[in-house]
Amino acid sequence: MDRFDVAIIGTGPAGLEAALTLKNRNKKILLLGNNNSSDKVYKAHEIKNYLGLPNISGEDFSKAFIEHIKVMGIEITEDVISQVYDMGDYFALQGHGQEMYEAKSVIIATGVKFDKPYKGEEEFLGRGVSYCATCDAPLYKGKNICVVLESADEFDEVEFLASVANELTLIPLYDDEIKSISNVKVVKDKPIEIKGERKANKLILENNEVDFDGLFILKKSVPLSYLLQGIEMDGAHIAVNRQMETNIKGVFACGDITGKPYQYIKAAGEGNVAALSAVNFLANNK
Amino acid sequence: MDRFDVAIIGTGPAGLEAALTLKNRNKKILLLGNNNSSDKVYKAHEIKNYLGLPNISGEDFSKAFIEHIKVMGIEITEDVISQVYDMGDYFALQGHGQEMYEAKSVIIATGVKFDKPYKGEEEFLGRGVSYCATCDAPLYKGKNICVVLESADEFDEVEFLASVANELTLIPLYDDEIKSISNVKVVKDKPIEIKGERKANKLILENNEVDFDGLFILKKSVPLSYLLQGIEMDGAHIAVNRQMETNIKGVFACGDITGKPYQYIKAAGEGNVAALSAVNFLANNK
Repeated sequence: MDRFDVAIIGTGPAGLEAALTLKNRNKKILLLGNNNSSDKVYKAHEIKNYLGLPNISGEDFSKAFIEHIKVMGIEITEDVISQVYDMGDYFALQGHGQEMYEAKSVIIATGVKFDKPYKGEEEFLGRGVSYCATCDAPLYKGKNICVVLESADEFDEVEFLASVANELTLIPLYDDEIKSISNVKVVKDKPIEIKGERKANKLILENNEVDFDGLFILKKSVPLSYLLQGIEMDGAHIAVNRQMETNIKGVFACGDITGKPYQYIKAAGEGNVAALSAVNFLANNK
Repeated sequence: MDRFDVAIIGTGPAGLEAALTLKNRNKKILLLGNNNSSDKVYKAHEIKNYLGLPNISGEDFSKAFIEHIKVMGIEITEDVISQVYDMGDYFALQGHGQEMYEAKSVIIATGVKFDKPYKGEEEFLGRGVSYCATCDAPLYKGKNICVVLESADEFDEVEFLASVANELTLIPLYDDEIKSISNVKVVKDKPIEIKGERKANKLILENNEVDFDGLFILKKSVPLSYLLQGIEMDGAHIAVNRQMETNIKGVFACGDITGKPYQYIKAAGEGNVAALSAVNFLANNK
Protein backbone atom coordinates (compact mmCIF):
# COMPACT_ATOMS: atom_id res chain seq x y z
CA MET A 1 0.00 0.00 0.00
CA ASP A 2 1.18 3.54 -0.78
CA ARG A 3 2.17 5.30 2.39
CA PHE A 4 1.63 9.05 2.20
CA ASP A 5 3.74 11.61 4.03
CA VAL A 6 0.65 13.47 5.21
CA ALA A 7 -3.07 12.66 5.13
CA ILE A 8 -5.24 15.76 5.28
CA ILE A 9 -8.82 15.18 6.41
CA GLY A 10 -11.05 18.00 5.18
CA THR A 11 -11.21 20.28 2.13
CA GLY A 12 -12.32 23.56 3.63
CA PRO A 13 -9.85 26.48 3.60
CA ALA A 14 -7.68 24.90 6.33
CA GLY A 15 -7.25 21.56 4.56
CA LEU A 16 -6.72 23.10 1.11
CA GLU A 17 -4.11 25.57 2.36
CA ALA A 18 -2.31 22.75 4.19
CA ALA A 19 -2.29 20.81 0.89
CA LEU A 20 -0.85 23.77 -1.06
CA THR A 21 1.93 24.31 1.44
CA LEU A 22 2.83 20.61 1.62
CA LYS A 23 2.83 20.34 -2.17
CA ASN A 24 5.20 23.31 -2.28
CA ARG A 25 7.46 21.37 0.06
CA ASN A 26 7.31 18.29 -2.23
CA LYS A 27 5.49 16.08 0.24
CA LYS A 28 3.36 13.14 -0.85
CA ILE A 29 -0.11 14.05 0.30
CA LEU A 30 -3.53 12.44 0.50
CA LEU A 31 -6.26 15.09 0.55
CA LEU A 32 -9.58 13.64 1.67
CA GLY A 33 -12.87 15.50 1.29
CA ASN A 34 -15.13 17.00 -1.28
CA ASN A 35 -14.47 18.27 -4.82
CA ASN A 36 -16.52 21.38 -4.04
CA SER A 37 -14.19 22.38 -1.17
CA SER A 38 -16.73 22.43 1.69
CA ASP A 39 -20.52 22.73 1.82
CA LYS A 40 -20.20 25.47 4.40
CA VAL A 41 -17.96 27.57 2.15
CA TYR A 42 -20.00 26.83 -0.98
CA LYS A 43 -23.24 27.99 0.64
CA ALA A 44 -21.79 31.13 2.27
CA HIS A 45 -23.57 34.30 1.19
CA GLU A 46 -20.71 36.76 0.78
CA ILE A 47 -17.28 36.97 2.35
CA LYS A 48 -15.88 40.47 2.77
CA ASN A 49 -12.73 39.93 4.77
CA TYR A 50 -10.61 37.30 3.07
CA LEU A 51 -7.68 39.57 2.16
CA GLY A 52 -7.09 39.69 -1.59
CA LEU A 53 -10.54 38.43 -2.68
CA PRO A 54 -12.96 41.32 -2.09
CA ASN A 55 -16.74 40.75 -1.69
CA ILE A 56 -16.83 37.23 -3.04
CA SER A 57 -19.72 34.77 -2.96
CA GLY A 58 -19.28 31.38 -1.31
CA GLU A 59 -19.65 29.69 -4.68
CA ASP A 60 -16.92 31.81 -6.35
CA PHE A 61 -14.79 31.37 -3.25
CA SER A 62 -15.00 27.57 -3.51
CA LYS A 63 -14.18 27.80 -7.22
CA ALA A 64 -11.11 30.00 -6.57
CA PHE A 65 -9.88 27.53 -3.96
CA ILE A 66 -10.42 24.46 -6.13
CA GLU A 67 -8.85 26.23 -9.12
CA HIS A 68 -5.74 26.96 -7.03
CA ILE A 69 -5.49 23.32 -5.95
CA LYS A 70 -5.78 22.19 -9.59
CA VAL A 71 -3.11 24.66 -10.76
CA MET A 72 -0.80 23.05 -8.23
CA GLY A 73 -1.64 19.55 -9.47
CA ILE A 74 -3.33 18.44 -6.25
CA GLU A 75 -6.17 15.91 -6.37
CA ILE A 76 -8.98 15.46 -3.90
CA THR A 77 -9.96 11.93 -2.86
CA GLU A 78 -13.71 11.93 -2.20
CA ASP A 79 -14.06 9.83 0.90
CA VAL A 80 -15.11 10.25 4.51
CA ILE A 81 -12.75 8.95 7.17
CA SER A 82 -14.57 7.08 9.90
CA GLN A 83 -11.58 6.26 12.06
CA VAL A 84 -7.86 6.96 12.40
CA TYR A 85 -5.63 4.36 14.07
CA ASP A 86 -2.25 5.24 15.56
CA MET A 87 0.02 2.37 14.44
CA GLY A 88 3.13 3.64 16.19
CA ASP A 89 5.27 4.73 13.24
CA TYR A 90 2.36 5.54 10.93
CA PHE A 91 -1.39 6.10 10.93
CA ALA A 92 -4.09 3.96 9.28
CA LEU A 93 -7.23 5.72 8.07
CA GLN A 94 -10.47 3.84 7.53
CA GLY A 95 -12.57 5.23 4.67
CA HIS A 96 -16.34 4.95 4.59
CA GLY A 97 -16.08 2.42 1.81
CA GLN A 98 -13.70 -0.55 1.98
CA GLU A 99 -10.73 1.75 1.42
CA MET A 100 -7.89 1.92 3.97
CA TYR A 101 -5.11 4.51 3.73
CA GLU A 102 -1.69 4.89 5.39
CA ALA A 103 0.18 8.08 6.21
CA LYS A 104 3.16 9.07 8.33
CA SER A 105 1.28 12.06 9.75
CA VAL A 106 -2.26 13.40 9.81
CA ILE A 107 -3.78 16.88 9.63
CA ILE A 108 -7.35 17.12 10.91
CA ALA A 109 -9.25 19.94 9.21
CA THR A 110 -12.79 18.64 9.40
CA GLY A 111 -14.49 21.82 10.57
CA VAL A 112 -17.11 21.76 13.31
CA LYS A 113 -20.60 20.39 13.23
CA PHE A 114 -23.23 21.57 15.60
CA ASP A 115 -25.74 18.71 15.49
CA LYS A 116 -26.26 16.99 18.81
CA PRO A 117 -26.07 13.21 19.09
CA TYR A 118 -29.39 11.40 19.50
CA LYS A 119 -30.45 10.50 23.00
CA GLY A 120 -28.72 7.20 23.82
CA GLU A 121 -26.24 7.46 20.90
CA GLU A 122 -23.13 8.07 22.97
CA GLU A 123 -24.24 5.63 25.67
CA PHE A 124 -24.73 2.71 23.25
CA LEU A 125 -21.87 3.44 20.80
CA GLY A 126 -19.98 0.13 20.41
CA ARG A 127 -22.87 -1.75 22.02
CA GLY A 128 -25.34 -2.10 19.15
CA VAL A 129 -24.64 1.34 17.67
CA SER A 130 -21.92 1.88 15.03
CA TYR A 131 -20.71 4.70 12.77
CA CYS A 132 -18.75 2.41 10.44
CA ALA A 133 -20.35 -0.13 8.09
CA THR A 134 -17.01 -1.57 7.00
CA CYS A 135 -15.81 -2.10 10.56
CA ASP A 136 -18.92 -3.59 12.11
CA ALA A 137 -21.04 -5.20 9.36
CA PRO A 138 -19.61 -8.70 10.09
CA LEU A 139 -21.14 -8.54 13.59
CA TYR A 140 -24.65 -8.48 12.11
CA LYS A 141 -24.48 -11.15 9.38
CA GLY A 142 -27.99 -12.56 8.83
CA LYS A 143 -29.41 -10.25 11.48
CA ASN A 144 -31.70 -7.23 11.42
CA ILE A 145 -29.98 -3.91 10.79
CA CYS A 146 -31.31 -0.38 11.05
CA VAL A 147 -29.52 2.47 9.24
CA VAL A 148 -29.91 6.22 9.82
CA LEU A 149 -28.50 7.80 6.64
CA GLU A 150 -27.58 11.48 6.58
CA SER A 151 -26.84 11.91 2.88
CA ALA A 152 -27.35 10.07 -0.41
CA ASP A 153 -23.55 10.08 -0.93
CA GLU A 154 -23.26 7.15 1.48
CA PHE A 155 -25.99 5.01 -0.12
CA ASP A 156 -23.48 2.37 -1.26
CA GLU A 157 -22.86 1.68 2.44
CA VAL A 158 -26.55 0.77 2.74
CA GLU A 159 -26.26 -1.61 -0.20
CA PHE A 160 -23.25 -3.24 1.44
CA LEU A 161 -25.06 -3.61 4.79
CA ALA A 162 -28.17 -4.97 3.04
CA SER A 163 -26.01 -7.66 1.40
CA VAL A 164 -25.04 -9.06 4.81
CA ALA A 165 -28.31 -8.38 6.70
CA ASN A 166 -31.47 -10.46 7.00
CA GLU A 167 -33.66 -7.36 6.91
CA LEU A 168 -32.61 -3.72 6.83
CA THR A 169 -34.71 -0.72 7.88
CA LEU A 170 -33.48 2.51 6.34
CA ILE A 171 -34.25 5.94 7.85
CA PRO A 172 -33.05 8.46 5.22
CA LEU A 173 -32.66 12.03 6.53
CA TYR A 174 -32.75 13.55 3.02
CA ASP A 175 -35.41 13.93 0.37
CA ASP A 176 -33.97 12.31 -2.79
CA GLU A 177 -35.60 9.23 -4.25
CA ILE A 178 -34.41 5.98 -2.66
CA LYS A 179 -33.33 3.06 -4.85
CA SER A 180 -35.38 -0.05 -4.11
CA ILE A 181 -33.56 -3.08 -2.62
CA SER A 182 -35.41 -6.33 -1.92
CA ASN A 183 -34.68 -6.72 1.81
CA VAL A 184 -34.68 -2.96 2.60
CA LYS A 185 -37.71 -1.23 4.09
CA VAL A 186 -37.64 2.59 3.97
CA VAL A 187 -39.18 4.53 6.85
CA LYS A 188 -39.43 8.32 6.45
CA ASP A 189 -39.36 9.56 10.02
CA LYS A 190 -37.25 11.47 12.51
CA PRO A 191 -35.01 9.62 15.01
CA ILE A 192 -35.57 10.64 18.63
CA GLU A 193 -33.95 8.14 20.98
CA ILE A 194 -31.98 4.89 21.07
CA LYS A 195 -33.09 2.41 23.75
CA GLY A 196 -31.84 -0.89 25.10
CA GLU A 197 -30.58 -2.72 28.16
CA ARG A 198 -26.96 -3.91 28.06
CA LYS A 199 -27.08 -3.38 24.32
CA ALA A 200 -29.15 -1.06 22.13
CA ASN A 201 -32.07 -2.79 20.36
CA LYS A 202 -34.75 -0.20 19.63
CA LEU A 203 -34.87 3.11 17.75
CA ILE A 204 -37.69 5.43 18.76
CA LEU A 205 -38.82 7.64 15.87
CA GLU A 206 -41.31 10.49 16.02
CA ASN A 207 -44.13 8.25 14.73
CA ASN A 208 -42.66 4.72 14.71
CA GLU A 209 -40.36 2.33 16.50
CA VAL A 210 -37.76 0.02 14.90
CA ASP A 211 -36.31 -3.08 16.60
CA PHE A 212 -32.81 -4.01 15.49
CA ASP A 213 -29.77 -6.14 16.26
CA GLY A 214 -27.45 -3.42 15.02
CA LEU A 215 -27.96 0.29 14.34
CA PHE A 216 -25.66 2.14 11.92
CA ILE A 217 -25.69 5.95 12.03
CA LEU A 218 -23.93 7.03 8.82
CA LYS A 219 -22.93 10.68 9.18
CA LYS A 220 -21.05 13.04 6.89
CA SER A 221 -18.48 13.33 9.66
CA VAL A 222 -18.10 11.31 12.79
CA PRO A 223 -17.65 12.77 16.27
CA LEU A 224 -14.03 13.62 16.91
CA SER A 225 -13.55 11.61 20.06
CA TYR A 226 -14.53 8.59 17.91
CA LEU A 227 -12.45 9.61 14.87
CA LEU A 228 -9.17 9.44 16.76
CA GLN A 229 -9.19 7.89 20.20
CA GLY A 230 -7.17 9.65 22.88
CA ILE A 231 -7.06 13.03 21.19
CA GLU A 232 -7.15 15.83 23.74
CA MET A 233 -10.15 18.11 23.44
CA ASP A 234 -10.79 21.60 24.74
CA GLY A 235 -14.58 21.53 25.00
CA ALA A 236 -15.94 20.81 21.51
CA HIS A 237 -12.58 21.62 19.87
CA ILE A 238 -9.26 19.84 19.47
CA ALA A 239 -6.67 21.30 21.84
CA VAL A 240 -3.68 22.67 19.89
CA ASN A 241 -0.71 24.91 20.58
CA ARG A 242 0.47 27.77 18.33
CA GLN A 243 2.23 25.23 16.11
CA MET A 244 -1.12 23.42 15.61
CA GLU A 245 0.25 20.32 17.34
CA THR A 246 -2.25 18.08 19.14
CA ASN A 247 -1.35 15.86 22.10
CA ILE A 248 -0.67 12.99 19.66
CA LYS A 249 2.74 13.11 17.97
CA GLY A 250 2.37 13.41 14.21
CA VAL A 251 -1.24 14.60 14.40
CA PHE A 252 -1.99 18.26 13.72
CA ALA A 253 -5.28 20.16 13.55
CA CYS A 254 -6.34 23.43 11.95
CA GLY A 255 -9.40 25.50 11.10
CA ASP A 256 -12.75 25.66 12.89
CA ILE A 257 -12.10 22.38 14.69
CA THR A 258 -9.40 24.12 16.77
CA GLY A 259 -11.75 26.84 18.03
CA LYS A 260 -13.21 30.24 17.31
CA PRO A 261 -13.23 32.56 15.46
CA TYR A 262 -14.85 30.51 12.68
CA GLN A 263 -13.32 32.52 9.83
CA TYR A 264 -11.96 31.40 6.47
CA ILE A 265 -8.71 33.36 6.59
CA LYS A 266 -7.97 32.17 10.12
CA ALA A 267 -8.59 28.59 9.01
CA ALA A 268 -6.30 28.97 5.96
CA GLY A 269 -3.55 30.54 8.08
CA GLU A 270 -3.70 27.66 10.51
CA GLY A 271 -3.60 25.16 7.63
CA ASN A 272 -0.31 26.71 6.56
CA VAL A 273 1.14 26.42 10.08
CA ALA A 274 -0.08 22.83 10.53
CA ALA A 275 1.51 21.88 7.18
CA LEU A 276 4.90 23.34 8.12
CA SER A 277 4.74 21.66 11.53
CA ALA A 278 4.09 18.36 9.72
CA VAL A 279 7.14 19.06 7.52
CA ASN A 280 9.23 19.48 10.68
CA PHE A 281 7.77 16.32 12.17
CA LEU A 282 8.63 14.32 9.04
CA ALA A 283 12.20 15.69 9.02
CA ASN A 284 12.69 14.67 12.65
CA ASN A 285 11.14 11.19 12.28
CA LYS A 286 12.78 9.77 9.18
CA MET B 1 -8.20 64.68 19.40
CA ASP B 2 -9.99 61.83 17.62
CA ARG B 3 -9.69 58.67 19.65
CA PHE B 4 -9.76 55.55 17.49
CA ASP B 5 -11.14 52.19 18.61
CA VAL B 6 -8.09 50.37 17.27
CA ALA B 7 -4.72 51.56 15.97
CA ILE B 8 -3.10 49.01 13.66
CA ILE B 9 0.67 49.41 13.23
CA GLY B 10 1.77 47.79 9.98
CA THR B 11 0.31 47.25 6.51
CA GLY B 12 1.58 43.83 5.61
CA PRO B 13 -0.98 41.00 5.29
CA ALA B 14 -1.55 40.83 9.07
CA GLY B 15 -2.30 44.54 9.48
CA LEU B 16 -4.47 44.76 6.35
CA GLU B 17 -6.54 41.71 7.28
CA ALA B 18 -7.01 43.11 10.80
CA ALA B 19 -8.24 46.36 9.22
CA LEU B 20 -10.73 44.53 6.94
CA THR B 21 -12.18 42.55 9.81
CA LEU B 22 -12.47 45.59 12.12
CA LYS B 23 -14.09 47.62 9.34
CA ASN B 24 -16.60 44.79 8.88
CA ARG B 25 -17.37 45.12 12.59
CA ASN B 26 -17.85 48.90 12.21
CA LYS B 27 -14.88 49.88 14.35
CA LYS B 28 -13.13 53.20 13.98
CA ILE B 29 -9.64 52.28 12.90
CA LEU B 30 -6.30 53.99 12.33
CA LEU B 31 -4.18 51.97 9.93
CA LEU B 32 -0.54 53.09 10.00
CA GLY B 33 1.98 52.02 7.40
CA ASN B 34 2.71 52.20 3.73
CA ASN B 35 0.43 52.69 0.72
CA ASN B 36 2.22 49.83 -1.07
CA SER B 37 1.30 47.37 1.67
CA SER B 38 4.79 46.26 2.73
CA ASP B 39 8.20 46.37 1.02
CA LYS B 40 8.72 42.73 1.84
CA VAL B 41 5.50 41.69 0.09
CA TYR B 42 6.04 44.06 -2.84
CA LYS B 43 9.49 42.67 -3.55
CA ALA B 44 8.54 38.99 -3.17
CA HIS B 45 9.28 36.94 -6.28
CA GLU B 46 6.26 34.65 -6.49
CA ILE B 47 3.85 33.32 -3.89
CA LYS B 48 2.39 29.89 -4.59
CA ASN B 49 0.53 29.04 -1.43
CA TYR B 50 -1.82 31.91 -0.56
CA LEU B 51 -5.07 30.00 -1.04
CA GLY B 52 -7.26 31.61 -3.70
CA LEU B 53 -4.53 33.62 -5.45
CA PRO B 54 -2.45 31.11 -7.44
CA ASN B 55 1.16 31.85 -8.51
CA ILE B 56 1.07 35.59 -7.92
CA SER B 57 3.98 38.04 -7.97
CA GLY B 58 4.70 40.16 -4.92
CA GLU B 59 3.74 43.28 -6.84
CA ASP B 60 0.34 41.89 -7.93
CA PHE B 61 -0.15 40.57 -4.42
CA SER B 62 0.38 44.02 -2.92
CA LYS B 63 -2.01 45.48 -5.49
CA ALA B 64 -4.71 42.89 -4.70
CA PHE B 65 -4.38 43.67 -1.00
CA ILE B 66 -4.49 47.44 -1.43
CA GLU B 67 -7.41 47.14 -3.87
CA HIS B 68 -9.35 45.14 -1.26
CA ILE B 69 -8.66 47.78 1.40
CA LYS B 70 -9.87 50.52 -0.96
CA VAL B 71 -13.06 48.62 -1.87
CA MET B 72 -13.82 48.54 1.85
CA GLY B 73 -13.20 52.29 2.18
CA ILE B 74 -10.15 51.95 4.42
CA GLU B 75 -7.36 54.54 4.29
CA ILE B 76 -3.73 54.07 5.17
CA THR B 77 -1.98 56.77 7.20
CA GLU B 78 1.65 56.88 6.05
CA ASP B 79 3.56 57.31 9.27
CA VAL B 80 6.04 55.35 11.36
CA ILE B 81 5.25 54.92 15.05
CA SER B 82 8.28 55.46 17.22
CA GLN B 83 6.66 54.80 20.57
CA VAL B 84 3.40 53.60 22.12
CA TYR B 85 2.47 54.83 25.62
CA ASP B 86 0.00 52.96 27.81
CA MET B 87 -2.17 55.73 29.32
CA GLY B 88 -4.33 53.43 31.42
CA ASP B 89 -7.65 53.65 29.58
CA TYR B 90 -6.16 54.37 26.17
CA PHE B 91 -2.89 54.31 24.25
CA ALA B 92 -0.95 57.28 22.82
CA LEU B 93 1.10 56.67 19.68
CA GLN B 94 4.00 58.95 18.74
CA GLY B 95 4.43 59.36 15.00
CA HIS B 96 7.81 60.06 13.43
CA GLY B 97 6.65 63.57 12.60
CA GLN B 98 4.99 65.78 15.20
CA GLU B 99 1.79 63.72 14.97
CA MET B 100 0.35 62.03 18.07
CA TYR B 101 -2.54 59.56 17.87
CA GLU B 102 -4.90 58.06 20.45
CA ALA B 103 -6.59 54.65 20.40
CA LYS B 104 -8.44 52.42 22.86
CA SER B 105 -6.51 49.37 21.70
CA VAL B 106 -3.48 48.59 19.56
CA ILE B 107 -2.64 45.82 17.11
CA ILE B 108 1.08 45.42 16.41
CA ALA B 109 1.70 43.99 12.94
CA THR B 110 5.09 45.45 12.16
CA GLY B 111 6.75 42.33 10.80
CA VAL B 112 10.28 41.39 11.74
CA LYS B 113 13.53 43.00 10.77
CA PHE B 114 16.75 41.13 10.81
CA ASP B 115 19.29 43.96 10.95
CA LYS B 116 21.43 43.93 14.04
CA PRO B 117 21.83 47.04 16.17
CA TYR B 118 25.20 48.82 15.88
CA LYS B 119 27.76 48.02 18.50
CA GLY B 120 26.99 50.26 21.50
CA GLU B 121 23.48 51.13 20.24
CA GLU B 122 21.53 49.23 22.88
CA GLU B 123 24.00 50.19 25.62
CA PHE B 124 23.72 53.95 25.00
CA LEU B 125 20.03 54.15 24.04
CA GLY B 126 18.58 56.98 26.17
CA ARG B 127 22.11 58.19 27.03
CA GLY B 128 23.09 60.17 23.96
CA VAL B 129 21.38 57.83 21.47
CA SER B 130 17.75 58.32 20.41
CA TYR B 131 15.33 56.83 17.87
CA CYS B 132 12.85 59.71 18.07
CA ALA B 133 13.54 63.23 16.81
CA THR B 134 10.25 64.61 18.13
CA CYS B 135 10.80 63.19 21.61
CA ASP B 136 14.44 64.12 22.15
CA ALA B 137 15.33 67.11 19.92
CA PRO B 138 14.79 69.60 22.79
CA LEU B 139 17.68 67.98 24.71
CA TYR B 140 20.14 69.06 22.03
CA LYS B 141 19.15 72.66 21.32
CA GLY B 142 22.21 74.58 20.06
CA LYS B 143 24.34 71.46 20.32
CA ASN B 144 25.98 69.14 17.81
CA ILE B 145 23.78 66.39 16.47
CA CYS B 146 24.63 63.35 14.37
CA VAL B 147 21.89 61.55 12.41
CA VAL B 148 22.03 58.08 10.86
CA LEU B 149 19.22 58.08 8.30
CA GLU B 150 17.89 54.81 6.89
CA SER B 151 15.55 56.14 4.20
CA ALA B 152 14.80 59.37 2.38
CA ASP B 153 11.20 59.18 3.64
CA GLU B 154 12.33 60.52 7.00
CA PHE B 155 14.33 63.47 5.64
CA ASP B 156 11.91 66.01 7.16
CA GLU B 157 13.07 64.74 10.56
CA VAL B 158 16.60 65.81 9.61
CA GLU B 159 15.36 69.28 8.67
CA PHE B 160 13.59 69.52 12.02
CA LEU B 161 16.70 68.43 13.94
CA ALA B 162 18.89 70.84 11.92
CA SER B 163 16.56 73.68 12.91
CA VAL B 164 17.37 73.14 16.62
CA ALA B 165 21.02 72.03 16.29
CA ASN B 166 24.23 74.05 16.12
CA GLU B 167 25.76 71.70 13.59
CA LEU B 168 24.36 68.44 12.23
CA THR B 169 26.33 65.60 10.64
CA LEU B 170 24.16 63.40 8.44
CA ILE B 171 25.07 59.78 7.59
CA PRO B 172 22.56 58.75 4.91
CA LEU B 173 22.33 54.98 4.34
CA TYR B 174 20.69 55.38 0.93
CA ASP B 175 21.82 56.65 -2.46
CA ASP B 176 19.37 59.41 -3.42
CA GLU B 177 20.57 62.99 -3.76
CA ILE B 178 20.61 64.89 -0.46
CA LYS B 179 19.05 68.33 -0.21
CA SER B 180 21.58 70.91 0.96
CA ILE B 181 20.96 72.58 4.36
CA SER B 182 23.33 75.32 5.66
CA ASN B 183 24.35 73.72 8.98
CA VAL B 184 24.24 70.10 7.75
CA LYS B 185 27.38 68.25 6.72
CA VAL B 186 26.81 65.00 4.80
CA VAL B 187 29.20 62.08 5.35
CA LYS B 188 28.79 59.05 3.10
CA ASP B 189 30.11 56.22 5.22
CA LYS B 190 29.10 53.10 7.11
CA PRO B 191 28.43 53.22 10.89
CA ILE B 192 30.40 50.63 12.87
CA GLU B 193 30.29 51.46 16.57
CA ILE B 194 28.99 54.00 19.08
CA LYS B 195 31.44 54.98 21.81
CA GLY B 196 31.33 57.04 24.98
CA GLU B 197 31.79 56.99 28.74
CA ARG B 198 28.67 57.63 30.85
CA LYS B 199 27.07 58.99 27.70
CA ALA B 200 27.65 58.28 24.01
CA ASN B 201 29.68 60.97 22.23
CA LYS B 202 31.43 59.40 19.25
CA LEU B 203 30.31 57.47 16.19
CA ILE B 204 32.98 55.32 14.56
CA LEU B 205 32.46 54.97 10.82
CA GLU B 206 34.37 52.73 8.45
CA ASN B 207 36.59 55.63 7.31
CA ASN B 208 35.71 58.52 9.67
CA GLU B 209 34.74 59.45 13.21
CA VAL B 210 32.01 61.90 14.26
CA ASP B 211 31.87 63.58 17.68
CA PHE B 212 28.38 64.51 18.84
CA ASP B 213 26.26 65.62 21.79
CA GLY B 214 23.30 63.57 20.54
CA LEU B 215 23.00 60.76 17.99
CA PHE B 216 19.68 60.04 16.27
CA ILE B 217 19.28 56.70 14.51
CA LEU B 218 16.19 57.12 12.34
CA LYS B 219 14.99 53.68 11.27
CA LYS B 220 12.02 52.51 9.24
CA SER B 221 10.93 50.61 12.32
CA VAL B 222 12.21 50.82 15.85
CA PRO B 223 13.13 47.82 18.01
CA LEU B 224 10.08 46.36 19.67
CA SER B 225 11.27 46.57 23.24
CA TYR B 226 11.55 50.33 22.63
CA LEU B 227 8.25 50.64 20.72
CA LEU B 228 6.16 49.51 23.69
CA GLN B 229 7.87 49.24 27.04
CA GLY B 230 7.05 46.23 29.16
CA ILE B 231 5.80 44.06 26.33
CA GLU B 232 6.68 40.43 26.92
CA MET B 233 8.94 38.92 24.29
CA ASP B 234 9.67 35.33 23.34
CA GLY B 235 13.17 35.72 21.92
CA ALA B 236 12.95 38.16 19.01
CA HIS B 237 9.14 37.84 18.84
CA ILE B 238 6.21 39.20 20.82
CA ALA B 239 4.75 36.51 23.07
CA VAL B 240 1.07 35.89 22.26
CA ASN B 241 -1.54 33.26 23.01
CA ARG B 242 -3.90 31.70 20.45
CA GLN B 243 -6.15 34.77 20.73
CA MET B 244 -3.18 36.97 19.73
CA GLU B 245 -3.26 38.70 23.12
CA THR B 246 0.02 40.08 24.46
CA ASN B 247 0.77 40.50 28.17
CA ILE B 248 -0.55 44.09 27.98
CA LYS B 249 -4.36 44.38 28.13
CA GLY B 250 -5.69 45.95 24.95
CA VAL B 251 -2.54 45.24 22.93
CA PHE B 252 -2.60 42.45 20.35
CA ALA B 253 0.03 41.27 17.89
CA CYS B 254 -0.11 39.30 14.65
CA GLY B 255 2.00 38.27 11.69
CA ASP B 256 5.75 37.65 11.51
CA ILE B 257 6.35 39.59 14.72
CA THR B 258 4.64 36.77 16.68
CA GLY B 259 6.97 34.10 15.33
CA LYS B 260 7.56 31.63 12.53
CA PRO B 261 6.49 30.48 10.01
CA TYR B 262 6.96 33.77 8.14
CA GLN B 263 4.13 33.18 5.69
CA TYR B 264 1.56 35.59 4.24
CA ILE B 265 -1.52 33.45 4.83
CA LYS B 266 -0.48 32.72 8.42
CA ALA B 267 -0.01 36.46 8.98
CA ALA B 268 -3.41 37.30 7.48
CA GLY B 269 -5.14 34.61 9.54
CA GLU B 270 -3.59 36.00 12.71
CA GLY B 271 -4.65 39.53 11.73
CA ASN B 272 -8.23 38.29 11.62
CA VAL B 273 -7.95 36.71 15.08
CA ALA B 274 -6.24 39.78 16.59
CA ALA B 275 -9.01 42.00 15.19
CA LEU B 276 -11.79 39.89 16.69
CA SER B 277 -9.96 39.77 20.02
CA ALA B 278 -9.78 43.58 19.91
CA VAL B 279 -13.54 43.65 19.23
CA ASN B 280 -14.08 41.54 22.37
CA PHE B 281 -11.75 43.76 24.36
CA LEU B 282 -13.65 46.90 23.30
CA ALA B 283 -17.00 45.29 24.19
CA ASN B 284 -15.74 44.40 27.67
CA ASN B 285 -14.11 47.80 28.34
CA LYS B 286 -16.78 50.31 27.38
